[in-house]
Amino acid sequence: MQKKIPVGVLGATGMVGQRYIYLLADHPWFEVAYVAASPRSAGKPYCEAVQNRWLIGSDIPAGVSELIVGDANDVSAAAGKCAFVFSALEMDKESIKALEAAYAGAGIPVVSNASANRWTDDVPMLIPEINPEHLAVIAEQKKHHGWDKGFIAVKPNCSLQSYMIPLFALERAGYPVKRMIVTTLQAVSGAGYPGVPSFDMIDNIVPFISGEEEKTEKEVLKILGSVKDGRIEAARAPVVAAHCNRVPVIDGHTACVSLEFDLPDEKKPALAEIERVWTSFRALPQELSLPSAPLSPIIVRHEENRPQPRRDRDADKGMAVTVGRLRPCPVFDIRFVALSHNTKRGAALGGILNAELLKAKGFFDGLY
Amino acid sequence: MQKKIPVGVLGATGMVGQRYIYLLADHPWFEVAYVAASPRSAGKPYCEAVQNRWLIGSDIPAGVSELIVGDANDVSAAAGKCAFVFSALEMDKESIKALEAAYAGAGIPVVSNASANRWTDDVPMLIPEINPEHLAVIAEQKKHHGWDKGFIAVKPNCSLQSYMIPLFALERAGYPVKRMIVTTLQAVSGAGYPGVPSFDMIDNIVPFISGEEEKTEKEVLKILGSVKDGRIEAARAPVVAAHCNRVPVIDGHTACVSLEFDLPDEKKPALAEIERVWTSFRALPQELSLPSAPLSPIIVRHEENRPQPRRDRDADKGMAVTVGRLRPCPVFDIRFVALSHNTKRGAALGGILNAELLKAKGFFDGLY
Amino acid sequence: MQKKIPVGVLGATGMVGQRYIYLLADHPWFEVAYVAASPRSAGKPYCEAVQNRWLIGSDIPAGVSELIVGDANDVSAAAGKCAFVFSALEMDKESIKALEAAYAGAGIPVVSNASANRWTDDVPMLIPEINPEHLAVIAEQKKHHGWDKGFIAVKPNCSLQSYMIPLFALERAGYPVKRMIVTTLQAVSGAGYPGVPSFDMIDNIVPFISGEEEKTEKEVLKILGSVKDGRIEAARAPVVAAHCNRVPVIDGHTACVSLEFDLPDEKKPALAEIERVWTSFRALPQELSLPSAPLSPIIVRHEENRPQPRRDRDADKGMAVTVGRLRPCPVFDIRFVALSHNTKRGAALGGILNAELLKAKGFFDGLY
Amino acid sequence: MQKKIPVGVLGATGMVGQRYIYLLADHPWFEVAYVAASPRSAGKPYCEAVQNRWLIGSDIPAGVSELIVGDANDVSAAAGKCAFVFSALEMDKESIKALEAAYAGAGIPVVSNASANRWTDDVPMLIPEINPEHLAVIAEQKKHHGWDKGFIAVKPNCSLQSYMIPLFALERAGYPVKRMIVTTLQAVSGAGYPGVPSFDMIDNIVPFISGEEEKTEKEVLKILGSVKDGRIEAARAPVVAAHCNRVPVIDGHTACVSLEFDLPDEKKPALAEIERVWTSFRALPQELSLPSAPLSPIIVRHEENRPQPRRDRDADKGMAVTVGRLRPCPVFDIRFVALSHNTKRGAALGGILNAELLKAKGFFDGLY
Repeated sequence: MQKKIPVGVLGATGMVGQRYIYLLADHPWFEVAYVAASPRSAGKPYCEAVQNRWLIGSDIPAGVSELIVGDANDVSAAAGKCAFVFSALEMDKESIKALEAAYAGAGIPVVSNASANRWTDDVPMLIPEINPEHLAVIAEQKKHHGWDKGFIAVKPNCSLQSYMIPLFALERAGYPVKRMIVTTLQAVSGAGYPGVPSFDMIDNIVPFISGEEEKTEKEVLKILGSVKDGRIEAARAPVVAAHCNRVPVIDGHTACVSLEFDLPDEKKPALAEIERVWTSFRALPQELSLPSAPLSPIIVRHEENRPQPRRDRDADKGMAVTVGRLRPCPVFDIRFVALSHNTKRGAALGGILNAELLKAKGFFDGLY
Repeated sequence: MQKKIPVGVLGATGMVGQRYIYLLADHPWFEVAYVAASPRSAGKPYCEAVQNRWLIGSDIPAGVSELIVGDANDVSAAAGKCAFVFSALEMDKESIKALEAAYAGAGIPVVSNASANRWTDDVPMLIPEINPEHLAVIAEQKKHHGWDKGFIAVKPNCSLQSYMIPLFALERAGYPVKRMIVTTLQAVSGAGYPGVPSFDMIDNIVPFISGEEEKTEKEVLKILGSVKDGRIEAARAPVVAAHCNRVPVIDGHTACVSLEFDLPDEKKPALAEIERVWTSFRALPQELSLPSAPLSPIIVRHEENRPQPRRDRDADKGMAVTVGRLRPCPVFDIRFVALSHNTKRGAALGGILNAELLKAKGFFDGLY
Repeated sequence: MQKKIPVGVLGATGMVGQRYIYLLADHPWFEVAYVAASPRSAGKPYCEAVQNRWLIGSDIPAGVSELIVGDANDVSAAAGKCAFVFSALEMDKESIKALEAAYAGAGIPVVSNASANRWTDDVPMLIPEINPEHLAVIAEQKKHHGWDKGFIAVKPNCSLQSYMIPLFALERAGYPVKRMIVTTLQAVSGAGYPGVPSFDMIDNIVPFISGEEEKTEKEVLKILGSVKDGRIEAARAPVVAAHCNRVPVIDGHTACVSLEFDLPDEKKPALAEIERVWTSFRALPQELSLPSAPLSPIIVRHEENRPQPRRDRDADKGMAVTVGRLRPCPVFDIRFVALSHNTKRGAALGGILNAELLKAKGFFDGLY
Repeated sequence: MQKKIPVGVLGATGMVGQRYIYLLADHPWFEVAYVAASPRSAGKPYCEAVQNRWLIGSDIPAGVSELIVGDANDVSAAAGKCAFVFSALEMDKESIKALEAAYAGAGIPVVSNASANRWTDDVPMLIPEINPEHLAVIAEQKKHHGWDKGFIAVKPNCSLQSYMIPLFALERAGYPVKRMIVTTLQAVSGAGYPGVPSFDMIDNIVPFISGEEEKTEKEVLKILGSVKDGRIEAARAPVVAAHCNRVPVIDGHTACVSLEFDLPDEKKPALAEIERVWTSFRALPQELSLPSAPLSPIIVRHEENRPQPRRDRDADKGMAVTVGRLRPCPVFDIRFVALSHNTKRGAALGGILNAELLKAKGFFDGLY
């Protein structure tokens, strides 16, 4: 058996950081060897730093429980302890940007869940099933900053993960989308911990999530963008209008989507063709058999009342997107409901899949 | 003090029936004098018939608690006991249709909450702020059936009540709407009792409500229709696409709306103008000072995270619609969130407002 | 019409402070004339200070919305603006203790909801139906501190309010209780705002509330204590064991109680006698017809599945306690379920009832 | 690899039946070869019979999906298809009793989850960690009925599973319990499907579960009973008083327990000793390494706010009981919070563990 690659987790005590630690517990390639958080937690064993606030399942994975937490601001503390870091930092955007750059500058690649670098144009915002060719900009990124081995790669917001792969599958099959109106019903875990007060989530919903609609509408275009002169140029379509709601669900973001194809009527796909496109969709992570890749990225259900968060979020390790209620839209062309696990596909496990892709493509070579 | 008008409630033990009884407890014009339900309940005092299943607040209103429940199928049992009946019958559609006609035929007007007669073209489907002129078809209805004093009037589905008045206010102000995409987050009380299992509403939402999307999309057009040859002819616009979801909320349906005006760009209203139209909107129920009419049918809120069901559903007796988050839509023209109380404005109190309008317009004259 | 007494609310932006403002909106005797909060809020109009965080119903009461918030630490700011203050301060215990004393020292009586002074032995901890004779210690309190018109009176914790009046009613009727085991299911509003994270209250309960069991077990004894030498001496019985749980309910604390009488078996009351004692229980607030006093402090229900928080918490303005499921206990003598509204009877409206009692007894004379 | 033992599931479409099918999907010994339900479902493929009502996870296990559902009332239909059946029948008690006897009479042992035969005194009510010696009565049962290979074994109610093993561990260690007062907070899955209406479980709890308190109080005594003359004689202690509540939790019953030892004060165990007894507790299922047995039946947690249903119910496959908050009780000796998974340990997986014990002890010999 080969030795696993040692990895670090920044922001290890927060909800996403905990999710990384939980999901990496039995990872075939990676092993958590370093955890870092705020100065308040630094110096304590991890189990003590999260005391009474371990949020996922009963227990902290055994291997991590006794690791001494480092100060995330102290880049040198990570040196030599890990081949790269997962960033689940919870700070203001500018501090995260500076800190992620500092890790990259110190030769430690950063696979980030944070939004700070999503719009940096030489930072790829990856969904491995969609835009692995965006990895090409990393060379330019390194050159531009004078970084040797370090670099930054990010993943997009959780709110769009449910419909982004179905959308891309249609585009790739030759059915470009002109515009779409999306209403999301998002789980509370997306807001971290303590996050949304229970006083707002009992007998209630909140029809607003700060910054979320803007992210959803904009990030779609970068993900579908193309590499030009070492940078990513955002796509121009589809135009997205999003309504983002917080609902009393632990995990699993649901999206109600109406969309219009950018095609003459006679070339628009029939529902059966769309279903065929979705169920047969496979991409690079499936070809490479990456450990966290779902066998089939899109699952189509036919029950009239599915997908539902509690029943469908864990499909294929929480990495498959489940689509249901595909039907004609009286205003646009089609409508459907899509669901993905926001803290697995939409956050930590999505980040791990990014790292698996980077590893498979040799971006960590020489670091472990 | 004038004597109150005696009224009956059909389907008195169900959730909507109970809501009628609760809301009529202190009504200035009407008084519950007769209650009817299924044969299983018939013959028992009302308090015994609903035993352990009184759903609204602590106690059955004193005046109704001891009324002996009649058999709703026995029209003659209601004769002489009430001037008209509220129908909250929960049966199959055909039985309701036949039974409501039987009451009307026996000279007892039926103000119905049921969907059975919504598409009967000589039955007005009323929202008193919008289409009181549809009352004109009652004369034709009576003539057609050979009814003397009885008739049927209905109210539309609860799912559209949140955005229907805002939509109409725009149309009346000269801003016709071409099409709209609506996603609703609907409360469980809309499904009656026992209704939605708790197993489906804890850590979950259900993106489907049987028949609801069709009703929402179609009823809008009848409500906006016009009277022609004694019948209502549905409007042709706007085209509505609805996504209806059940969420863990007790009362209050929320709708996320994106809409496009049927106007050249330069004639489309600015957001400030739309807000002016909404906040200044008044209609016949306000002019007549009907007891259940809200002072202002549309309340516009400016907080970024409102309306919310628990906070806003009870605005102005649960009869005002609350609108918030009015903002431009990148796909259509505008988008906003609208909320109404589904068992007050959207069901029983909406039915009572219909009865108040009918009374004010003399439709019950000679019956009490 | 007589002019209302001007009152102040300290901690006006928190959940209990908001509840005071909401409940005093139409009070027949009192009128909110002054609001104070942390320095962060001071100087702003109240509506701006609570912006997007108004928690109760749709809107801030009109009269308070535009009041300029004072700094609660600046006692002099309150002088001349109000006859007394309600304290809903949310600070550490020592700061509250010092600040409440400062108000009292400045001649402004403090009717407090905070726990800081509950165990000060010359401060009465009032439930007006139970221990109005404890008001006698206020004279000693004033003398001891050299206060002229100011003084401090407090109310007990919300967790015991559901069973405390039923317990006292039994004791007063000659049925002393030896010991009781109580398990509470407490609403999230008791934790303030933001309070309990929704991540902990969806598909979950938390079997722990910091400090709550100790308060419940101990406060019972002071409430039942007697005045001796100008101080309150705690009672010795009953011994209480409490298990306090947080459950996903907005308002309304439920308690499951098993209790044993301190009587020989043949003198123990039958269930029918206990019910008679409870339903006939009236006390000083009822005799004085205090505006917030319930007509009947204890409501006994006979449905097998009541009381329930959402159905019963608002009984008689949220000031009546509802008891149900009275039955024999195989281990002790009897068991039952009791419920009270934790932010009305258990917090703000309980505090207002205390102020009404103080007013009726002349403790505010000369202050307005 | 050895061939698996074919088993049947009666009541296969209900919630407990589905749970059996889900949990047996990868069982090392057993394989679902036959499913039966009401005549309404009989004759259909299983996937069609449960259509839109598959409650657990996304999908019906592949091997069962296409099985043709038998009529549970037709015992002959099961003959030859399975070595024994799990009974998750949902009918009236008398029908279940008759039907379970019919299966046993036809030579098909019944491992039942139903309550119908729990008080039949020659039917063992098993928790394999506690009373495997009760299996001895099966011989008498067979003799009495003249059954050859068939017999009936049952499991107790889910409400007591959380505290029953901790209680027994104390008794076995020489610390008999005299009496205990228990308040349970029970999950909605315990009520089956559709079960508890969501209207009762949003912003609410229900302090009553029909028949549950009686079962809890009585079953404890049979489980702790002894075999005498081929029958089980119930124990006389401890006396249990139960308060059973329904709370908005999907899975996981929590119990707040206060108990008193039947020992002189000087012989009562210290808290540390109790913890030692619990953490070191092992029993026959652990010795036999039964596949569904937890490694350690009792897990003791030290966080102040645990156990919690969502975090702890799945401990060790959902078969370990988690205990926390062990502390002195001011009224009795000790108090604590205990939690078990009601549909795993408390229902289907508990039933499977019973079957594993029966298999290991040779009760199915000759049947497969």
